[in-house]
Amino acid sequence: MRVGDHHYRTVWMEGSKVFLIDQPKLPHRFEITTTDHHRQTAKAIKDMVVRGAGAIGATGAYGAAQAALEAPSDPHDFRIYFATAVEHLRATRPTAQNLFYGIGRVSKAVMKELPDVSAAREAAVAAAGEVAEEDAGACRRIGEHGASLIGEGWGISTHCNAGWLAFVDWGSALSPVYAAHRRGQRPFVYVDETRPRGQGANLTAWELGGEGISHALIADNAAGHFMQRGAIQIVLVGSDRIARNGDVANKIGTYTHAVVAHEMGIPFYVAAPTTTIDPQCPSGDDIPIEERDADEVLYTVGRDDEGQIRRVRVAPSGCAARNPAFDVTPARYITGIITEHGVFPATPDGIARTLKARDPAT
Amino acid sequence: MRVGDHHYRTVWMEGSKVFLIDQPKLPHRFEITTTDHHRQTAKAIKDMVVRGAGAIGATGAYGAAQAALEAPSDPHDFRIYFATAVEHLRATRPTAQNLFYGIGRVSKAVMKELPDVSAAREAAVAAAGEVAEEDAGACRRIGEHGASLIGEGWGISTHCNAGWLAFVDWGSALSPVYAAHRRGQRPFVYVDETRPRGQGANLTAWELGGEGISHALIADNAAGHFMQRGAIQIVLVGSDRIARNGDVANKIGTYTHAVVAHEMGIPFYVAAPTTTIDPQCPSGDDIPIEERDADEVLYTVGRDDEGQIRRVRVAPSGCAARNPAFDVTPARYITGIITEHGVFPATPDGIARTLKARDPAT
Repeated sequence: MRVGDHHYRTVWMEGSKVFLIDQPKLPHRFEITTTDHHRQTAKAIKDMVVRGAGAIGATGAYGAAQAALEAPSDPHDFRIYFATAVEHLRATRPTAQNLFYGIGRVSKAVMKELPDVSAAREAAVAAAGEVAEEDAGACRRIGEHGASLIGEGWGISTHCNAGWLAFVDWGSALSPVYAAHRRGQRPFVYVDETRPRGQGANLTAWELGGEGISHALIADNAAGHFMQRGAIQIVLVGSDRIARNGDVANKIGTYTHAVVAHEMGIPFYVAAPTTTIDPQCPSGDDIPIEERDADEVLYTVGRDDEGQIRRVRVAPSGCAARNPAFDVTPARYITGIITEHGVFPATPDGIARTLKARDPAT
Repeated sequence: MRVGDHHYRTVWMEGSKVFLIDQPKLPHRFEITTTDHHRQTAKAIKDMVVRGAGAIGATGAYGAAQAALEAPSDPHDFRIYFATAVEHLRATRPTAQNLFYGIGRVSKAVMKELPDVSAAREAAVAAAGEVAEEDAGACRRIGEHGASLIGEGWGISTHCNAGWLAFVDWGSALSPVYAAHRRGQRPFVYVDETRPRGQGANLTAWELGGEGISHALIADNAAGHFMQRGAIQIVLVGSDRIARNGDVANKIGTYTHAVVAHEMGIPFYVAAPTTTIDPQCPSGDDIPIEERDADEVLYTVGRDDEGQIRRVRVAPSGCAARNPAFDVTPARYITGIITEHGVFPATPDGIARTLKARDPAT
C-alpha cells in the first residue's frame, strides 16, 4: 500500500536479500530492514519485526528461499543444510499456521527438483514469490467482495490491525476499505486504539493515513457510543481462527463490539482469507485463549516528547493484571465472513461451502 | 478509606487549613496538599487536584468556610469579602452541580447568622463539615444497600473510578465492594483501565489495593470476555447524571458494558447518591455529551522507568481523534439504581420514588 509516493508490500525479496518493514518502529519511524541470510530472516520473525499471519507466511517462505540460495552445491550437503534451515525457520513462531504453510511450499518445490540443485534454487525463489503473490491476491479479492457491502460515505468501525501490515498487501478487514476508497465511496474509519498493545493506534491509523483515508482514533470504550449514535454503518474485523461452526477468535474486544453491533442492528463482518478456517476446530469453545504478559496491561508504550520510544507504567506498583489476548465471537453475532471466494454466512453450512471453494477437490 | 495504616478522607479541614489528597499524583505518589486560603482551595478545584462530584462539593464548602474565617470583622466588609469569595469558588468548575450545592449550604448558614460575624464564622465551618459528613454518610449507606446484592466470592466488574476518591469517603460504585469486603464476602474486582484518562488503572486499582481487596487490572477490551466466560457476577458503575426516565450518563464505555451484561444476563447496577438525579432532565437524549481534548486519546500518561510522570504519544503524528467523555446507558439495561435510600428500579416510577425519598416534602 501507499507510503508517501510509493507502493510498499510488508515483505519482498530481491536477489538473495529479503526486505521487511520494521513494524515495531511504527508509527513513529518508517524503516525498511534487510536480511542477507536465512538466520537473520528467522530472527526478524522471532523478534516480531514482522507480524500477522500472511506476512509471516511470506517471510518464512522467503527465508527458506534464502536457505536454498545459501546451501552448498553438492546435492547431499544441500539437503542437510536446507533441512536444518527449514527446522530453524519453523521454530521461530511455534503456533503460526501460515509460517509452516509458506515454508512447506518452498520445501516441496525444492524436493521436487533435487538432486538438480540449480533447478531447486530457482524453484525455491519462484515458490516463495508465489506464496507472497497468493496472499496479496487473496487479500485484494477480499477487498473487492467486501467493498460491495460498503455504502457511500459510511462510517466504519474496525478493531486491532487487520490491514496490509498483517499480510503482504491490502490486508483483510481493511482491504474492503481500501477498495471502497479507491472506488470513490469516501469511507470514514473509527479506529479503536486496541489496548493493551495498541495496534489500532500504532498500525491501523498509520496505514489509513498513508492511503489518505479519513479516520479518527478513538478509545476502545468509545466504539459502542458511536454505534449507538448512528455514526457507524458497518463493523469490519479480521480473525485469528475461524471454527467449523462459524465462531471466530480475534483480538480481545472483538466480542464486545459484536454484541453492541448486534444490539444496534449494525452489520458485523469478519474478513479473512480461507486459510484462517480451521476445519479441525468444531467451535469457539475449542479455541484456547492465550493469556499474555501482565506488563502489556500495566504499561503503555509510545514516543516521548524527545522522540524516544519508551514505556510508562499506568498502574500502581504491585498491581495484578489479567491479559487475555483474544476472545471468541459466537457465530450468531456475525453477519457474514468475507473471503477471497466471496461472502459466506457464519454457519456450519456456510463454512463447509467456504472450505469447498478453497479446496474444490475435497 | 485505608491507605497504609490510616483511614483517610479525600478532603478535610483543621482550623483554617484544608487538607486534600493530591489526586493527579496517584497512583505513583500519595501526598496530602494543604491550602491556607480560599483562593488556594479554588485553585486546587480548578487544577483538578480534587475531582469527583462529592469530593468537589465538600472542597467548595470548606473553601467557603475558609473565606468566612478570612473575611474582615466588620459586617458590611464581611459581606462583600464573602460574596466575592463565593463567586470566585463557584467559577472554578462551571458545570459541577455539587460544587454549587456545597458552597450554597455554607453561604445560607452564613447569611442566617449575619450581622453576627463571629456566629457566621462558626456556622460556616459547621455547615462545611455537614456537607462532607452527609456525603460520606450517603456513600456509606449506598455501600450497605449494595453489599446485600453481592454474593460470596463474586467477580465484580467496575468502570472508571466511582470510589472514595470521587467522594469524601467510601465512594458510590465501590462502596458496596468495601462493605462486602468488610463483611468477609471476599469480592474480586475486575478493574477496567478506563482509557483515555485511565482512572481505573490510576485510582480504582490503587484504592482497592489500600483496602486489601483482591483485584486485577484489565484492558477495557477484556471486560466483555470475562463476562462471557462467567467470571463476573455483577457490574457496578457510578453515574454523572441520571435522567427522570432512568437513563444514566457515565464515563465513556459504560454503555458497552451494560449491553454485554444485559446480553449475558449479568445484573448491572448504577450506584449514586440521589443528588445525581436531575429532575429537570427528561431522558438520556437530553444529556449533552462533552467532547474532550483529542490529546487524551493520542497520548497516555504514566510513570517512566526513572520514576518521572510523562506522557507518551501512541498515535502517528497528524492523526485525528474523537474523544467523547461520557455515554448514555438506556434505562432498559439497568437492573437497579443503588442510592443512600435503597435500591430503586431505573424507571420513571422508580426515579419518582427515589426523588420522594430524597425530598419527602415535595
